[in-house]
Parts: sequence; structure tokens; C-alpha cells
Amino acid sequence: MTQSFHPPQRTLMGPGPSDVSPRVLGALGRPTIGHLDPLFIELMDDIKRLLQYAFKTGNELTIPLSAPGSAGMEAAFVNLVSPGDTVIVCQNGVFGGRMKENVERCGATAVMVQDRWGDPVDPIKVEAAFSAHPEANLLAFVHSETSTGVRSDAATLCGIAKAHDALVVLDTVTTLAGIDLQVDNWGADAVYSGTQKCLSCVPGLSPMTFSPAAVDRIQNRKGRVQSWFLDMQLVMGYWGGSSKRAYHHTAPVNALYALHEALVILEEEGLETSFARHHENHLDLVTGLEAMGLEMAVDPAWRLPQLNAVRIPEGVDDAAVRHRLLQEFNLEIGAGLGDLAGKQWRIGLMGHASNSVNVQRCLTALRSVLGR
Amino acid sequence: MTQSFHPPQRTLMGPGPSDVSPRVLGALGRPTIGHLDPLFIELMDDIKRLLQYAFKTGNELTIPLSAPGSAGMEAAFVNLVSPGDTVIVCQNGVFGGRMKENVERCGATAVMVQDRWGDPVDPIKVEAAFSAHPEANLLAFVHSETSTGVRSDAATLCGIAKAHDALVVLDTVTTLAGIDLQVDNWGADAVYSGTQKCLSCVPGLSPMTFSPAAVDRIQNRKGRVQSWFLDMQLVMGYWGGSSKRAYHHTAPVNALYALHEALVILEEEGLETSFARHHENHLDLVTGLEAMGLEMAVDPAWRLPQLNAVRIPEGVDDAAVRHRLLQEFNLEIGAGLGDLAGKQWRIGLMGHASNSVNVQRCLTALRSVLGR
Repeated sequence: MTQSFHPPQRTLMGPGPSDVSPRVLGALGRPTIGHLDPLFIELMDDIKRLLQYAFKTGNELTIPLSAPGSAGMEAAFVNLVSPGDTVIVCQNGVFGGRMKENVERCGATAVMVQDRWGDPVDPIKVEAAFSAHPEANLLAFVHSETSTGVRSDAATLCGIAKAHDALVVLDTVTTLAGIDLQVDNWGADAVYSGTQKCLSCVPGLSPMTFSPAAVDRIQNRKGRVQSWFLDMQLVMGYWGGSSKRAYHHTAPVNALYALHEALVILEEEGLETSFARHHENHLDLVTGLEAMGLEMAVDPAWRLPQLNAVRIPEGVDDAAVRHRLLQEFNLEIGAGLGDLAGKQWRIGLMGHASNSVNVQRCLTALRSVLGR
Repeated sequence: MTQSFHPPQRTLMGPGPSDVSPRVLGALGRPTIGHLDPLFIELMDDIKRLLQYAFKTGNELTIPLSAPGSAGMEAAFVNLVSPGDTVIVCQNGVFGGRMKENVERCGATAVMVQDRWGDPVDPIKVEAAFSAHPEANLLAFVHSETSTGVRSDAATLCGIAKAHDALVVLDTVTTLAGIDLQVDNWGADAVYSGTQKCLSCVPGLSPMTFSPAAVDRIQNRKGRVQSWFLDMQLVMGYWGGSSKRAYHHTAPVNALYALHEALVILEEEGLETSFARHHENHLDLVTGLEAMGLEMAVDPAWRLPQLNAVRIPEGVDDAAVRHRLLQEFNLEIGAGLGDLAGKQWRIGLMGHASNSVNVQRCLTALRSVLGR
């Protein structure tokens, strides 16, 4: 007979999932109610309003998609892109490449704007791509590249798209609640995130918001959205403003309890206070890492406070270090992805996990394992 | 400030979600670990093996999809169907219609086999459809129609498809762990389910299994799968048998704790014992309903023990009855869907919720509210 699973108590300082607050875990385990229960509908309304707060948007279509951030990315593209479209896609890490995959699977052409992994997206190259491809009607980029720990200048990039009458798909998986995000002020049109990063909620949901211009494009599509599950015209019927909700799929009830609690915690702390906390713990971590002779991989101007990319010193065995951190300290930090595998670690300080105890725990553990 | 959400303790006897066992809720709320943690990989292996047990299959590609059953349906179609294909789709309720939508969004033609909502799929019509469309390479049908409470003869229907060299997509959302399901013996090729029915787990995941013939078709596709998130060639890289797992998306860690526990409970009870329990409680419910003068909507030969369709008596206000059951008894039963709205109730006795206390609770509450 199979035994029940009892996980250890890890400290999650990788690229996500991040540590989940006990309050959120408590909410997660509450009794399940029906997904059409009047009380559940009230919960859904709360979540929409709290997500609007977190995204800094008044967008009516602001919802948690019932699937992970990867599905959120796909939802943005399949709803906004039609076959034959041209989309400008910025790549400065893993997730820009995934965007290209999504665009092409919609039957559209992806014009790639490439930057070195570890640098931000270069607005000059984006401007040049629009000049070379005036037919492009969408710009897609990642605000916070989880694979490299780099922030790009979203306000400037959105401005370029607007000047060329293009909509913007914005990946904020690692951004939301960690650093400033102004969906309405910047003019981003389809924005998705994940719950397992700076919201410190369990993985599995993708908070999303669509601007009125995005909704307009969706409603005026010539062809149907290729995905039934991700078709926002159908999802809107369930999550939309009307009192009559049309059944689309069974919502992940308990995961939404958890998201609600995570958003309540965010509201209690306040967005700006949360940003300041992330920033301060980041500075403390960097100070400690540099004091033991480690080097940060990203220029200070573009560093993400919630995801710290650190160069692995010459001669140090990446996997062995991470293995010892996990086994001896119950501490998870992230490996490098793609070309950065073996070259960098990614140390997360996300949401609930961004606190001074974790900063010290990580520094102590690294000093011990590296012998510094 | 928004308040934390504290749901009431409902008794869920609708079409799902069903009542979740306290053991499963307990597992759900355990501390989150990383989705690439070695201990999590062990959990994934347990889940695959237990799902093989529940599906009665040796299929290597047997996994829980990180999204609800609706996404499981879409995953079956987008992987097996290519543009220009002909698919025979049986419709005897809501979910057959959804299959048609999925087939068409893959650029394929759906040949519909229609039966009255409340009847099983007619094998003679399916045979005729294959005769009229020898080019059809896929048959799709729902084993247990959640919208009507009807079981179809899956073994016979799969046999017809095999005789015509077609693969089979089989919807077992309401079947799994409630009534007998023999994926390998019947020869079903892409089978999906949900966690929120007879597994008595929280909603949000879709257990799936693909036969070697299905995997072969996927690996020999001419074009890419239109969905990145649901592309089984990518999902296999994460859930597959090799020790090196490629990151695809962040697994919903805590939901998988819950699914693991639900499957451990199923293994402890044993599949056949679980089927017998569902059957006995169903008979008791029917006896009680008929004793108060209510009529079952489905022929006894095709009734689902886990979802009981009952005719709403003339002059009874459907919504008012369900409202009182919820408010006065914390009891949820299901409304009719589509053409059956206002005409039938759907009373679930699924998984953990299929017990004699619930049978009596439901009968007592209905007697009180209906004045019988």
C-alpha cells in the first residue's frame, strides 16, 4: 500500500514556487463548496477586485485563469493573435522563446528582438522592429525575466507599441506584488502572472487582466479562438460582470480560497510597502553575498529584488552545492536555465519568503557549504 | 479591508465538486516544496502508478494534467487531431457538444452521432457513421454524461472504433473510481477525467492516460500541436519515465498532494469495493426518492450510481427548492443543464460523499422542502 505523503518544511528561495504563508495554506484546506454557490460567487468578486488592485488596473476582465502561468501566456496569445498576424517578440531569456512558440502555433509570424540573456530588452531595437514591420499589431515581452533576474523598462516599451498602434502582451509572472507594475498607466493590454511567485500562493493559477482594447480585438476576431478552454469570450461568461454566470468549467475552488487569502494579505500590507520590503531584503542579500566574494550577474540598474542571479565561482560544483543546501539546510535555491545552467544560481526573495530571517538563513547556509 | 473567506460546511451532492475527504484537505494544506524537489519527483511517480491502477491501464503516459477536466478534453483532441481529419463525435448531452467545439477548433470535421439527452450512445448509429465516413480516424464519446446521469457502453463503442482502425477519445470525468472503467481491456486511447467527482479531490486537475497507439500518433504528427501548454510531447518531458525531467511548467504542487492522498484512499478501499459502495448507496437513494413519489429520469439499465437524474414534479419551483436545500440544510444538489434545466435535478453520490448518512440527509431534506 502507498503511504500518505508528508513533505518536509523547506525554505523556498528558488525562482518559485516560493514559501507559502501559513495563512494561505490554512485557507487552502478549508471545506470545498460548489463553484456555483452564491458564496463562491462573492469570493470571485473579491478576487477580481483585489487583482485589479494588485495589477493597478480598472480592467473589467481581470481574473485568475484556472491553470498555471504558462497557460496564462497561451491565453494572451490565442485570444489576441490571428493567423497571418505579425507579432514583435522580445527575447532576453527563456520565456521570450516560449512566447515565440506560442505566436507560431497561432499561425502568426514572430519577429524576434534579441538581447543577451542577462540584459534588459533594448527599446531601440524594438523601435527598429516596428519600423521594419509596420504591419505588426502586437508587441510581447517579459517584464521580469525569471530565467535571468532582469527587469525591462515596461513603460517605455509599451509606449513604443502604442505609438505604432500595436497592443501589448506583458509577462508579469515574477513581477506581480514584487516590483512596481502599472497596467493602466503603462498601457499594457494582456497581462498575465502566476500565483507561486511574489503572491506567495500555491502554484496552479494565472492572474490575468485584459484592457478594453484587448477585449475589443477579441470580440471582433474573424475566426474562433483555437483553444476552447482559454477562449476569453467563454471565460468572460463565467467570470464576467453579469449576475448570471454561465458554466464554463469547474473552478479550482480551494486554490481560489488560497489566492483570496494571499491577496487579502497583500492588501493588508499595501503594495508600496511590499515593494519596499522586497527592495530592502534584496539589498541585504547582495551585501552579504558580495561580502563572501560572490558576484551578482545583473547590472544594478536592472536587478530584480525578488530574483537574484549570482555567478557560480570557478571550480564550484553547482549541483553539489544545491544538493547540500537542500539536504543539510532544507533550503532550495534555483539553478540556471538554458545557457546559464551551471553558470548562475537564482536566489528568490519572493513575497512571504522575502524577509530578513531568510536572507540570513541563505547567507549562513551558503557560507557553510562554500567554506567562505 | 477585505476579510478572509470562511466557507460554510456544505454537503456537496451535485454533479461535482463532491465532498472532499478531511484527509485530502489535510494533505492539500501541507507545506509547499519545489516542483523539481527530489521528493516531489517521488510523489509524481506514486501518482502515475496510482492513476494507472484507477484507470486499469499499463499506459506509460498516465499523468494528472495541471488544469481542469475541460482542459483534459482539449488536450486529448489537440494532440490526436490534425487539420483535415474526420472525427466521429457522439452527443447525448452537454459534453458531446463541447467535443464538437474542440474538434472544429483543431481544423477537423466533426461527424455528429446524435442521441436523445437521457439515452446512451447508440452503437448502431456509430457503426453507420463509420460506414458513411471510412476516412474517420477517431471516435469520441462520453462514458458517463454528467449532464444527464447516463452511462454508455464504452466497451462496445471502443470495439467499433478498433474495427475501423480509429482511435478513441473517452471522457471519464464522472466515471473514474465510481463505476468500472477498463482503459486497456476496452482499448480506449486518450482518456481524461477530473479530480472533483468520484476521486473526491479538489477541482483543478485532469487525470489522463494515452495508449501507445495514441503516443505513436502524437509523435508522428505532421504539424505541431496548436497548444503549447497541452502539447503532450512537452508534457512527457516533465512527467515522462526518464530520470531527467525537463521543466515545462510549474506543477500545482499542493493540488498534487491532495490528488495523491485521494488515490491512496482509493487504493486502501480498493476499486471494486468503491464501485460496490457507489452502487448500494445509489439503490438506497432511488428507493427513498421513489417512496416519496419522485421519478428517476434514466432507464435503470443506463443509470449512473454516482449521478442520479430525478424528474422535477409538475408545479415545483426548481430554483426555490435548491435555494432552500442550500440555505436550510447546507445541501447542494445539481440543476439540470441545457434542455433539461428546470426539468431535472442531478443528485450526486460521488466518492467520499457516497455514504448512507448523505443518502438519508438528502432524503430528509427533500421530504421537508417538498412537503412529502
